[in-house]
Amino acid sequence: MKFKRLAILGVGLIGGSLALGLRRADMCQTIIGYGRNRDNLLRAKELGVIDEFTTSAEEAATGADLVVVATPLATNEKLFSAIASSLGSNTVITDVGSAKECVVDAARLTLGSNFPNFVPGHPIAGKEKSGVDAAVADLFEDHLVILTPLGDTSINAISVVTQMWEAVLADVTTLQVEHHDAVLAATSHLPHMLAYALVDCLTSMQENEDVFQFAAGGFRDFTRIASSNPQMWHDICFSNSKSLLTVLGNFEDHLQALKQAIENGDSEKVLEIFSRAKQSRDEYVVGK
Amino acid sequence: MKFKRLAILGVGLIGGSLALGLRRADMCQTIIGYGRNRDNLLRAKELGVIDEFTTSAEEAATGADLVVVATPLATNEKLFSAIASSLGSNTVITDVGSAKECVVDAARLTLGSNFPNFVPGHPIAGKEKSGVDAAVADLFEDHLVILTPLGDTSINAISVVTQMWEAVLADVTTLQVEHHDAVLAATSHLPHMLAYALVDCLTSMQENEDVFQFAAGGFRDFTRIASSNPQMWHDICFSNSKSLLTVLGNFEDHLQALKQAIENGDSEKVLEIFSRAKQSRDEYVVGK
Repeated sequence: MKFKRLAILGVGLIGGSLALGLRRADMCQTIIGYGRNRDNLLRAKELGVIDEFTTSAEEAATGADLVVVATPLATNEKLFSAIASSLGSNTVITDVGSAKECVVDAARLTLGSNFPNFVPGHPIAGKEKSGVDAAVADLFEDHLVILTPLGDTSINAISVVTQMWEAVLADVTTLQVEHHDAVLAATSHLPHMLAYALVDCLTSMQENEDVFQFAAGGFRDFTRIASSNPQMWHDICFSNSKSLLTVLGNFEDHLQALKQAIENGDSEKVLEIFSRAKQSRDEYVVGK
Repeated sequence: MKFKRLAILGVGLIGGSLALGLRRADMCQTIIGYGRNRDNLLRAKELGVIDEFTTSAEEAATGADLVVVATPLATNEKLFSAIASSLGSNTVITDVGSAKECVVDAARLTLGSNFPNFVPGHPIAGKEKSGVDAAVADLFEDHLVILTPLGDTSINAISVVTQMWEAVLADVTTLQVEHHDAVLAATSHLPHMLAYALVDCLTSMQENEDVFQFAAGGFRDFTRIASSNPQMWHDICFSNSKSLLTVLGNFEDHLQALKQAIENGDSEKVLEIFSRAKQSRDEYVVGK
């Protein structure tokens, strides 16, 4: 399989890395990049990430056999609307968003008869750094990509998107949309909220300066994700707010129970919580 | 300076690493180890960590010019009591506990006229693995050690303990007892509570299996500290419960504010929290 014309909408870390990986696998004749920022697109072309570029999404999608939407989640609906009338009847569309229900809703609302050719996707890969300068061809190697096709998604479209991800050496799996959003809220979105809230809490403490001065290695690892892009996580937060608020409430209950146990001097309960968590965490690491 | 007889009470990761580091620096004639578990002490001798051992703390302390207490926090008071009558008038005593007010209280209660020779200490170093088999000579290299001497602590004792840590290439600094406990509650004890509570929360979720299966790299880093020794963290938790509960309450307020902002669709507030946290975290890393 080789794409004649691949359109990457949003040439940042994810879109750029996908382009580089597909190029390495010799999967594309031409890669056209779309974005709002001309300088960024010029830079992407300079880096050899894309062959051509345009600041019109419509133009980028025209004649493409595959369109990958890799812009921030909040822009998806507007972008789908913009390209809907330019899509060929066989054009396959996919995305890379960290929440899926909101993207599926936007696609269903805007893509019309092309909706069955849309395959929602989410590569579980990233970096603290964003932007096309951080893009690398091997970003997805041995990483999971979760596709969340619907009952009416075309089998052919699913196959095309699967082959695309396998070409960059990712492991492709599928999940139900709702299940994806619940699982990601728990393992990714909630930890980011906790890391941001912790660093914000410590920043507000009077001992501010010393607080960070005496932080150990564990703190550095624990808060690494608080260095992630605020705008991106803002978008994810609101795009998956239903699942996120559910698991956040669940976490608050667990934290409250631990706090209560400490307040009550309930030694057995505290040891039980810590031991159960350690066992789960150790099993998870062994399983990786 | 060279110690004639160094007594290490508790030959685990910290006590064992200190012994190895001091030996490497040729700082001791004889190192005697005390513990309750004979097999562990035999193993420590086999590994060349200690020269002699005993299961009597009293015997270990007798004739020592320096006694390092490196047992779990909960045992400190009992141990101080046991050795109090064996201490020479010039014997210097120090400890390695992660909370300091409780240790100072225990020492003041039990050490009598030897109390001024007790220098409370806390090396900011560790590993997920515990036990003497994990001990290494360079564990403290370029790591902070916080001493929290009191107004009546002997200047000579402070100097001896400072030289001991500098011999294993640690950076020694001092803090007030209360300040130490507040800062460590914020940067170390609270993050451990959050990591344990998060993993426990996810373990209890129905999607259990999938939850961990789809976890990304960020989750691995974020929960690393939930693989720490449960008994040790149980002890730390109760030994520093006052400071820990204060900062835990503070954190809950911050998390609640973030949750509220998500619920209310308060885009500006969420972005503000994330941006402020990212800035602090980035500055902290640059400062390291």
